[in-house]
Amino acid sequence: MPYVNIKVTQEGGPNGIGPSPEEKAQLVAGVTDLLEKVLNKSPATTFVVIDEVPLDNWGMRGQQVSHIRAAQS
Amino acid sequence: MPYVNIKVTQEGGPNGIGPSPEEKAQLVAGVTDLLEKVLNKSPATTFVVIDEVPLDNWGMRGQQVSHIRAAQS
Amino acid sequence: MPYVNIKVTQEGGPNGIGPSPEEKAQLVAGVTDLLEKVLNKSPATTFVVIDEVPLDNWGMRGQQVSHIRAAQS
Amino acid sequence: MPYVNIKVTQEGGPNGIGPSPEEKAQLVAGVTDLLEKVLNKSPATTFVVIDEVPLDNWGMRGQQVSHIRAAQS
Amino acid sequence: MPYVNIKVTQEGGPNGIGPSPEEKAQLVAGVTDLLEKVLNKSPATTFVVIDEVPLDNWGMRGQQVSHIRAAQS
Amino acid sequence: MPYVNIKVTQEGGPNGIGPSPEEKAQLVAGVTDLLEKVLNKSPATTFVVIDEVPLDNWGMRGQQVSHIRAAQS
Repeated sequence: MPYVNIKVTQEGGPNGIGPSPEEKAQLVAGVTDLLEKVLNKSPATTFVVIDEVPLDNWGMRGQQVSHIRAAQS
Repeated sequence: MPYVNIKVTQEGGPNGIGPSPEEKAQLVAGVTDLLEKVLNKSPATTFVVIDEVPLDNWGMRGQQVSHIRAAQS
Repeated sequence: MPYVNIKVTQEGGPNGIGPSPEEKAQLVAGVTDLLEKVLNKSPATTFVVIDEVPLDNWGMRGQQVSHIRAAQS
Repeated sequence: MPYVNIKVTQEGGPNGIGPSPEEKAQLVAGVTDLLEKVLNKSPATTFVVIDEVPLDNWGMRGQQVSHIRAAQS
Repeated sequence: MPYVNIKVTQEGGPNGIGPSPEEKAQLVAGVTDLLEKVLNKSPATTFVVIDEVPLDNWGMRGQQVSHIRAAQS
Repeated sequence: MPYVNIKVTQEGGPNGIGPSPEEKAQLVAGVTDLLEKVLNKSPATTFVVIDEVPLDNWGMRGQQVSHIRAAQS
């Protein structure tokens, strides 16, 4: 009965604001499949929760991703 | 000083989009009361955080809940 | 399909090192029951995960709980 | 390679709805700096994620913060 | 820069007490690969954290997994 | 009433197995102080929880940290 939480930034995807519903479906299917293959976990009791985080709310290297992206563009 | 995080999908409730403020109040009161009764934890230092997750972002059985609900209806 | 995470400190309980297996069973049953009563969530797909945290690893008021407890005794 | 998650209520800040982008930048920089000073962790691999929680979704003393704030005002 | 947290029970694996180091390596590689393929996320900034949870501390159907397993055997 | 969760690997510190109690105390005090200075949050209701993660259970660049460290030494 695994529980998986995936956090990604709200960027990329078809509209530049994060993963599309279809991409999220691929994440859910892919992670569930991985846990079944590697650990024999049943898909019936595998939960996957995806969190999408605004660029101002994610920091790396001591800076917000919004700031890092602005410097890159 | 317990910390409790409750994650639910954005469905159900009076408007079909998740728990109402009153239902959230019942969750907060109920969990806090449970921790006091079972473990003698003080309500003064019991935190409860409720996260509401879009149906596209929650997976079970390798599928998004949005997909599961559409197949059920 | 709720997911609930309960974090408590490793203290109290019958041996002073945290909740007993029976107390954990009461937490699991109580939270699952609460979600069914308030939000009509099915117990079959309600997950509860309990984390027990060492007193040195939990801070409140800017101090470790281990320090707070030593000052109280 | 630390991972830090900061959860705050959606209140306070310049508009009363939570921290401003500049305040979030200070949290990111401050936490990253703290981990470098205390544990010699590299800022390059320090992640900080800030979650802003609605007042109805945060409970303390068995009550929602929205209720506590209304009683205080 | 995704962050992924995988929680599994301490069971299964080569010794019946949870995933082996090699199985954990497969989870890390598999999830990182999935995020690169689906969302074009760089492996350099993909973090994966695996938590192993005692059977007494994981509940499903209102019961501890330790209880469910005992009833199954 | 902030809640902060800090996850670090079980390495470094005075014994090479992670932060000492004194270093954890500095993290707790430093984060609590930061939230008071930046957001005027009361230390009385600021919780900090530190999780220490085994090197086999933390992945980066698609590899376990235990593997990365072995390749570096």
